[in-house]
Amino acid sequence: MFNIVIIGTGNVSHHLCNAILNSKTLNLVQLFGRKKKLPKNFKQSISYCYNLKEIKKADFYIICVNDGAILKVSDELSLDKSSIVVHSSGSTNMDELSKHKNYGVLYPLQTFSKRKKTNFRDIPIIIEGSSNSVLNKIKKLSTLLSKKVVVCSSEQRTLIHISAVFTNNFSNFMNIIAEKILKSQNIDVDILNPLIKETADKLNYLSPSEAQTGPAIRNDEITIQKHLNLLKETKYFEVYNRLTEEIIKSKNEL
Amino acid sequence: MFNIVIIGTGNVSHHLCNAILNSKTLNLVQLFGRKKKLPKNFKQSISYCYNLKEIKKADFYIICVNDGAILKVSDELSLDKSSIVVHSSGSTNMDELSKHKNYGVLYPLQTFSKRKKTNFRDIPIIIEGSSNSVLNKIKKLSTLLSKKVVVCSSEQRTLIHISAVFTNNFSNFMNIIAEKILKSQNIDVDILNPLIKETADKLNYLSPSEAQTGPAIRNDEITIQKHLNLLKETKYFEVYNRLTEEIIKSKNEL
Repeated sequence: MFNIVIIGTGNVSHHLCNAILNSKTLNLVQLFGRKKKLPKNFKQSISYCYNLKEIKKADFYIICVNDGAILKVSDELSLDKSSIVVHSSGSTNMDELSKHKNYGVLYPLQTFSKRKKTNFRDIPIIIEGSSNSVLNKIKKLSTLLSKKVVVCSSEQRTLIHISAVFTNNFSNFMNIIAEKILKSQNIDVDILNPLIKETADKLNYLSPSEAQTGPAIRNDEITIQKHLNLLKETKYFEVYNRLTEEIIKSKNEL
Repeated sequence: MFNIVIIGTGNVSHHLCNAILNSKTLNLVQLFGRKKKLPKNFKQSISYCYNLKEIKKADFYIICVNDGAILKVSDELSLDKSSIVVHSSGSTNMDELSKHKNYGVLYPLQTFSKRKKTNFRDIPIIIEGSSNSVLNKIKKLSTLLSKKVVVCSSEQRTLIHISAVFTNNFSNFMNIIAEKILKSQNIDVDILNPLIKETADKLNYLSPSEAQTGPAIRNDEITIQKHLNLLKETKYFEVYNRLTEEIIKSKNEL
């Protein structure tokens, strides 16, 4: 049984707390946040504190705060020598925690929103540890949370994070633009849902390169020109133009 | 019972033929293609011809060829006055078929690849007709193929097609880039699959704007800078930089 303290009350913390509460072999000792009250989206039975001096003893301290605040939070923490502190950030070097004896990283590779439940068991966890024995303990903890645990260096983790930005953040931004174009025409945005679903579903059968379709990959200049003409007065012209050029350029490498 | 001839042997034709063959109320009279033999991915029991003069009588002729070839194929067709000819293109004006008495559009809004099955009933069909009575017949046919049929003008249809390019082609290109970055590090590309799935799945619960996460929407300059530094020597730098700028710019409108 691992005893765990979570630091931070954002989206990652919210989903991680739920995963720990649902686990029979993990114990959420305490949640720490800056606010005076436990935010309402958390289970109200969680032991909460907002004063770092009141933080309880635990095997693991998982820092789930904005990347820019990790160093500051870490500096304020003073822990037992047997405890391990990890952060959950995709792009923060492990060494920001190096004032502690045992430290590492536990980065869950997923997009978290408060209003959408996730199954933590399906989420790959990318880990790193300050020593082999620390790494092994972080691996044990991660294996209790997820089916897929991957050991990586800080630089590799950042590259995984960058991949996630492309595959989630930028893809979703494409959906935002698509929705805005339809809304501007009073067309029901739901008609895109089967296409969005299929875009993801296809990748169970084909690689992204095999799944690529559309005017750019066909270098269909007539259609591309029609689209650019219709977009000319809009702020989407540049994104369409640039991504089309990139797809045409990359065609020979697919 | 509608009798249908399909013209063209690409991906749309492939999936449309299967949908018609699976329907009890539609009859695939013939498939026309330029090749001398019926391509192997089609059911070999289909009646096939490659000479336009041998084309049979039918209620509907559905042109599923590249946009650039629609006008030429249409010009070569001479049909009964009671027949209706439609094309299946997202961005081609209906009037390219205006040499015929009855014409229109039947555009299935989906991404088709030969190796991935689709359920045509779930695919929205965007239609247009040269007259009210023609439109009604196209609507009847479409309703037999799909649960969702939408009537649109040619310009609106092109805007729907543009939305589809963003939501599918450009999103999938983001997945290609993500995969290439991981491959360059010998990291198992499958670790992105849960994220790709969740990116689509989230939209059953949240709008794309609500679902947007990541460094750009948080305007997290430290992380963005780290990512740009790591991408500096790669061809992905520009796409990352441009899309991040666009997301930051659009932040106030989300």
